[in-house]
Amino acid sequence: MKDKHSQNGVAIALFAVLALATTIARAADPLPSWNDGPAKQSIVKFVDKVTQPTSPDFVPVPQRIATFDNDGTLWAEQPMYVQMFFVLDRVKALAPQHPEWKDKEPFASVLKGDVKAALAGGERPLMEMLMATHTGNTTEEFELIVKEWIATAKHPVTKRPYTEMVYQPMLEVLAYLRANGFKTFIVSGGGIEFMRPWTEKVYGVPPEQVIGSSVKTRFELRDVKPVLVRLPELNFVDDNAGKVVGINQHIGRRPIAAFGNSDGDLQMLQWTAAGPGARFSLYVHHDDAAREWAYDRQSSIGRLDKGLDEAKAKGWTVVSMKDDWKLIFARPE
Amino acid sequence: MKDKHSQNGVAIALFAVLALATTIARAADPLPSWNDGPAKQSIVKFVDKVTQPTSPDFVPVPQRIATFDNDGTLWAEQPMYVQMFFVLDRVKALAPQHPEWKDKEPFASVLKGDVKAALAGGERPLMEMLMATHTGNTTEEFELIVKEWIATAKHPVTKRPYTEMVYQPMLEVLAYLRANGFKTFIVSGGGIEFMRPWTEKVYGVPPEQVIGSSVKTRFELRDVKPVLVRLPELNFVDDNAGKVVGINQHIGRRPIAAFGNSDGDLQMLQWTAAGPGARFSLYVHHDDAAREWAYDRQSSIGRLDKGLDEAKAKGWTVVSMKDDWKLIFARPE
Repeated sequence: MKDKHSQNGVAIALFAVLALATTIARAADPLPSWNDGPAKQSIVKFVDKVTQPTSPDFVPVPQRIATFDNDGTLWAEQPMYVQMFFVLDRVKALAPQHPEWKDKEPFASVLKGDVKAALAGGERPLMEMLMATHTGNTTEEFELIVKEWIATAKHPVTKRPYTEMVYQPMLEVLAYLRANGFKTFIVSGGGIEFMRPWTEKVYGVPPEQVIGSSVKTRFELRDVKPVLVRLPELNFVDDNAGKVVGINQHIGRRPIAAFGNSDGDLQMLQWTAAGPGARFSLYVHHDDAAREWAYDRQSSIGRLDKGLDEAKAKGWTVVSMKDDWKLIFARPE
Repeated sequence: MKDKHSQNGVAIALFAVLALATTIARAADPLPSWNDGPAKQSIVKFVDKVTQPTSPDFVPVPQRIATFDNDGTLWAEQPMYVQMFFVLDRVKALAPQHPEWKDKEPFASVLKGDVKAALAGGERPLMEMLMATHTGNTTEEFELIVKEWIATAKHPVTKRPYTEMVYQPMLEVLAYLRANGFKTFIVSGGGIEFMRPWTEKVYGVPPEQVIGSSVKTRFELRDVKPVLVRLPELNFVDDNAGKVVGINQHIGRRPIAAFGNSDGDLQMLQWTAAGPGARFSLYVHHDDAAREWAYDRQSSIGRLDKGLDEAKAKGWTVVSMKDDWKLIFARPE
């Protein structure tokens, strides 16, 4: 009996040591949702290179700027951009105040539930819906509408809140970079005021580090109370070359690392890669039809064609969601 | 003898205690260039109120946003905006490449040294000079030009570099707020790319926290090298109501403290004051003709008229440079 107890004791002690070692290893791994492979290694290698004081590529903290596309890079963009679901829901919510929409396209199709028909007309009807649902109110009113919607709306396929359709491995990259002195920015074609109400909570990115497309606003005094009114006029389109213009406007210095997933991010990645010293450009490649969606060169949403060629030619990191990521979506809280 | 020694000993000890107490008091005073008075007290009281965890007006760190006008609030703006001196110097520097300027106003007057005549025509010739001196190059080229100019140019009256024409008491406010968890932003009518090359060194404000007026830029690939070209077209005028629009665009949340010196800052101060919780709006009043310049309601540069009335009506802090500031300009390094 005594021997058996003793053996058990040793086994328990060994198990405890192993468990502890695993915990330590996990704590030491800043990217636990990434499989070991060239993509993960390239990120860690770059961060080491620019943060170790003895490194020839050392970059002082204030210059550690990293920019991230949002749709398809930090959260899912299929079967449609999240902001598009917001537009459709807002058309339905506002319909009682617009009886004329019943007979007016593209609104009529939305109200009949025929999204495909509503979007068939291309950019013009889309812009009409955007303006009808995004403007006419004050910035504070719009912020409340977004906050309420994002807290309650669910993704049509996964039935999860959109803020849980964010990629766990990318949340880890954001946190890892910040832990290493980086300022992380979002640079998205999406609406700047559609993102700001929730990016701080979901990504740890404060409103002043969010860059996006915008409408013009007008300052007004309403009964001595100052407000900003959102006008039905485009101010800035933060996509393609616009991303570089937006980065220069908002940040005023060149990022040293940039993350995207589509041709719309290509100029941002080129701009980032073209600076002096160590540079990092990364594409997330959607190749996991089982756990997410698989799309690239032919997709109308998030097309990755020229960018994929340039990434390969220039040796940028291309992440295979299928092979490089242990899991896709954020862990439930 | 012994008594005398003993008395001396006491005196020395007393002196040491007094010296120590003075040192401690000075170290504890975050605003040593401010005379004790209602202006200084209002700043300290506000900071205490929003930072002490038990205060009913406590504000979490991420929401501690403070915005500062630049010309006349952080540095001198007389006898002319600093950027205007830059324009005139650039006209002279570029003249050899523009032989036609010899006979073309307003350039001809500048080259003859008649600044008054050059500026007499109002906004249109001014804009012509601005565009001729601020655009046509890349963002990187323009940055170098500004850096070189600001490092060498001298103020015509004081003969000091412009970056020493910054107000020491305001540098202390910037540092004091940052030490208390504030993010400090510049919100200026001046050119955003004219300020960014030096604000980090001079004010401790990094480029991404500088908001200003801007021209449009265009992304280009030059022999595969991406550049942003500065176009002769206004993008944004960050003055008056534009300051609120700019704050919303860049920061995406309302400041809790704002500092200005002219009617061009009034909407920013109104916007800041109108938010919930503790708020702080401050005007620097130029009333010190002996040490700086005295001007307000009648001045064409930095006019403070409506703003002065509103500040008094609303109980905002109005700083008398004459009475509230022990010294005006930055201490030589």
